[in-house]
Amino acid sequence: MAWDLNLSIDRDSRETLAAQLRSAVRRHIEEGALHPGVRVPSSRQLAADLGVSRSVVVEAYEQLCAEGYLVSRRGSGTLVAAARSEIGSALTPDDRPPPAEVVDLRTGGSDTSTFPRQDWIRCVSSVISSAGPRELGYGPPSGLASTRHTLVGYLGRVRAVRTRPEHLMITSGFAQGLAMLCRVLRDAGHDRIGVEDPGHPGEWRFIADAGLRPVAIPVDGDGIRVDELIASGVRTVLTTPASQFPTGAVLSTGRREQLVAWACAVDGYIIEDDFNAGWVAPARRMPALQSLAPDRVVYAGSASKVLAPALRLGWVATPAELTGPVERVRASWDIGCSGIEQLAFARLVDIGAFDRHLRRLRAESHRRRQAVHHFLARRLPRVTVFGREGGAQTYLELPRECAEKLLVQAARRRAVLVRGGRFYALRDDDRAPALVVGHAGVSGAALSRGLAGIAAAYRDVTEHRGG
Amino acid sequence: MAWDLNLSIDRDSRETLAAQLRSAVRRHIEEGALHPGVRVPSSRQLAADLGVSRSVVVEAYEQLCAEGYLVSRRGSGTLVAAARSEIGSALTPDDRPPPAEVVDLRTGGSDTSTFPRQDWIRCVSSVISSAGPRELGYGPPSGLASTRHTLVGYLGRVRAVRTRPEHLMITSGFAQGLAMLCRVLRDAGHDRIGVEDPGHPGEWRFIADAGLRPVAIPVDGDGIRVDELIASGVRTVLTTPASQFPTGAVLSTGRREQLVAWACAVDGYIIEDDFNAGWVAPARRMPALQSLAPDRVVYAGSASKVLAPALRLGWVATPAELTGPVERVRASWDIGCSGIEQLAFARLVDIGAFDRHLRRLRAESHRRRQAVHHFLARRLPRVTVFGREGGAQTYLELPRECAEKLLVQAARRRAVLVRGGRFYALRDDDRAPALVVGHAGVSGAALSRGLAGIAAAYRDVTEHRGG
Repeated sequence: MAWDLNLSIDRDSRETLAAQLRSAVRRHIEEGALHPGVRVPSSRQLAADLGVSRSVVVEAYEQLCAEGYLVSRRGSGTLVAAARSEIGSALTPDDRPPPAEVVDLRTGGSDTSTFPRQDWIRCVSSVISSAGPRELGYGPPSGLASTRHTLVGYLGRVRAVRTRPEHLMITSGFAQGLAMLCRVLRDAGHDRIGVEDPGHPGEWRFIADAGLRPVAIPVDGDGIRVDELIASGVRTVLTTPASQFPTGAVLSTGRREQLVAWACAVDGYIIEDDFNAGWVAPARRMPALQSLAPDRVVYAGSASKVLAPALRLGWVATPAELTGPVERVRASWDIGCSGIEQLAFARLVDIGAFDRHLRRLRAESHRRRQAVHHFLARRLPRVTVFGREGGAQTYLELPRECAEKLLVQAARRRAVLVRGGRFYALRDDDRAPALVVGHAGVSGAALSRGLAGIAAAYRDVTEHRGG
Repeated sequence: MAWDLNLSIDRDSRETLAAQLRSAVRRHIEEGALHPGVRVPSSRQLAADLGVSRSVVVEAYEQLCAEGYLVSRRGSGTLVAAARSEIGSALTPDDRPPPAEVVDLRTGGSDTSTFPRQDWIRCVSSVISSAGPRELGYGPPSGLASTRHTLVGYLGRVRAVRTRPEHLMITSGFAQGLAMLCRVLRDAGHDRIGVEDPGHPGEWRFIADAGLRPVAIPVDGDGIRVDELIASGVRTVLTTPASQFPTGAVLSTGRREQLVAWACAVDGYIIEDDFNAGWVAPARRMPALQSLAPDRVVYAGSASKVLAPALRLGWVATPAELTGPVERVRASWDIGCSGIEQLAFARLVDIGAFDRHLRRLRAESHRRRQAVHHFLARRLPRVTVFGREGGAQTYLELPRECAEKLLVQAARRRAVLVRGGRFYALRDDDRAPALVVGHAGVSGAALSRGLAGIAAAYRDVTEHRGG
């Protein structure tokens, strides 16, 4: 294998070539340019690259091996030796697998076990095989026309979203879309934005980083409270109407109409975070809120929860008047997402594999949700369970006397990671204690083990109080 | 194929189910949610999804076909009919292939013909096949630890870059890295940044968008003029020392030392844009400037020119004191690049396929450069040719009396797209007329045709003057 190496030699030097080579390699290692484990070229290759005789390189390599700078391994060539202090340091904490016995029921994960590996490989292969200079070159920052075309067709079909390719931007995930929107709103004079409480703390951080203040709007069984939204005085709201995160409430028909009327009345916008819609069968769910008012609703979704977060693919359909401003922010941040993955994703949709995958994902998620709900009804009879319909999490309201924080701690002692309602609350006044059980990352025996752990922790806490 | 469709029916309505279905589909089409060409589920599938009898759906579909809303095609199912006004509108201008006879010798492209398709497919397949929840899930915004580890080893080996994984960020291309750096510099009180003139106008735009003013620093045959940099009073400079863009000048040893001394003296930074380094054989090129002063030089590179722009993969190694600020800007913009592509790229490097690809790319680029230089020496004897060593472009200084603008126009009339020096100039005072010939996108017969077109255009312009 012809590994490249950056070295320079000086033919006019009084040092021999081998000595120059040896000291150059040694210096690169000592200065931290050549790292332990890095391959160096074969002596034959390096001699050819430098235009010197092979014996020069052989002599230098032998000396470097003898001094412990390089190691030569039969079959794998020559590489930079590991400094004693370096062994193991390449492993940073996030590389280490977590202990196998811990069950992670925190939300935020996604069910990557169902990721359609073979379909994805096929789509990437097909895209790469047929890609020309246009597909491999620079694309429009807002996304490839063909991918936007496919996605507009898809979102119209499964979510009744009414938009056109020129108003749909492909983003590096929902987070980027939100960050850009906040920047546009701030530039337009907004200083606050309504958010659901409970809701998604990660999004509040993005909002705050963009210089806007997230304002808590309460949520009930019908979704976001529009009366409270009106009272707040904000002019834009971020909401999850299909399945409120984390309570799972579906925005009622009445609230949908009120919400749109509010946006028109205040000349504001609704940002519809539709990340959660994939878990409800399209034939049985309400269309996207955007379909009621495409000029007032920004529709945003992503492949993170329904395919894999690692893809970093999202999309945002904007009312016409916001398209230009969002494009200008995007153009000052980066010049677009991977064209290969955009094309592969569009192909996945075009050949029907994405629809097929979502059916499997929904079925699996439904099984898990049922398991969670049945278990809770049987073993924690005094909790109130929200979110029977969708989402990859279940929101439990605990009896008033059950201390949420102690329950989370007790679960952790039983090797179950789960979050209390506090994590999702923007204001913490007079909130019933709660637990949010996510099932995206665990299935089967692990899920049962996690639920049993929660039940045991619940006993620990309530009996401790009683005893 | 089980295509999903968002439709809702009301069992309590007085309308028949078939009539409801028909009007719902019609409304979705008329409102622009269901787009021409989009597939709808088979009647069997939709009946199952809605929990109605199949005859209900068959009746609705037949009616919709008769009315011209849907079309049914043997073998490809039922789809939304094309509205007459919509035919062809899915093709936006950038989808249309350019006329085949035009030769594009503008810079900015990359040689995607050498893209290692099979290796890339193999790497993606291998990554996807073995990916677990960690690889498919959310990764650190700054990049996966394993990819940063590989890249640090690689950059140390081929460019003598001295850094550690925690100071190397994976970016969505060089542009994103530059945009973040500008933001950090502006927050630190900088209001200007030195840039090479001639240089890269796209980068000036990013700089300006970030609120900094690009200040022109002249370039000569030894690269950027450090005396002019000192005189300018700026404290940070963006430079291409390995192969100045677009002149191809290599920063001389003396200038390298002066540049680093300047950065230390003004307590400033050098942003080393190393995108061009891939075209010079590592054994024969100078190490990255960063290797001289890792605490003063920000090293930035990308896969765009050496692999494919479509990948949107770049990297930036920062002095330790800049790492935190850059990470904070990144965390407010997005949450990282595609993990799959990060892993696939690292694998390409780890198995040696990237080195192998670069050797092929360099050989091909060398052939093209030679062809350009030989042709120009023979056919345009009165021009001065710069950049014999690297880069994917050649900078020609024209005789004073040759009007650059007319030459560009004459070339265009002869179906050759090429840019004059004006395009790359920040200040336009007293500059010799010039032409910049890019060869990244064209090879073989097309390159010869393009060069012949330039020679003919040159005759057109000079003879027109003479005549």
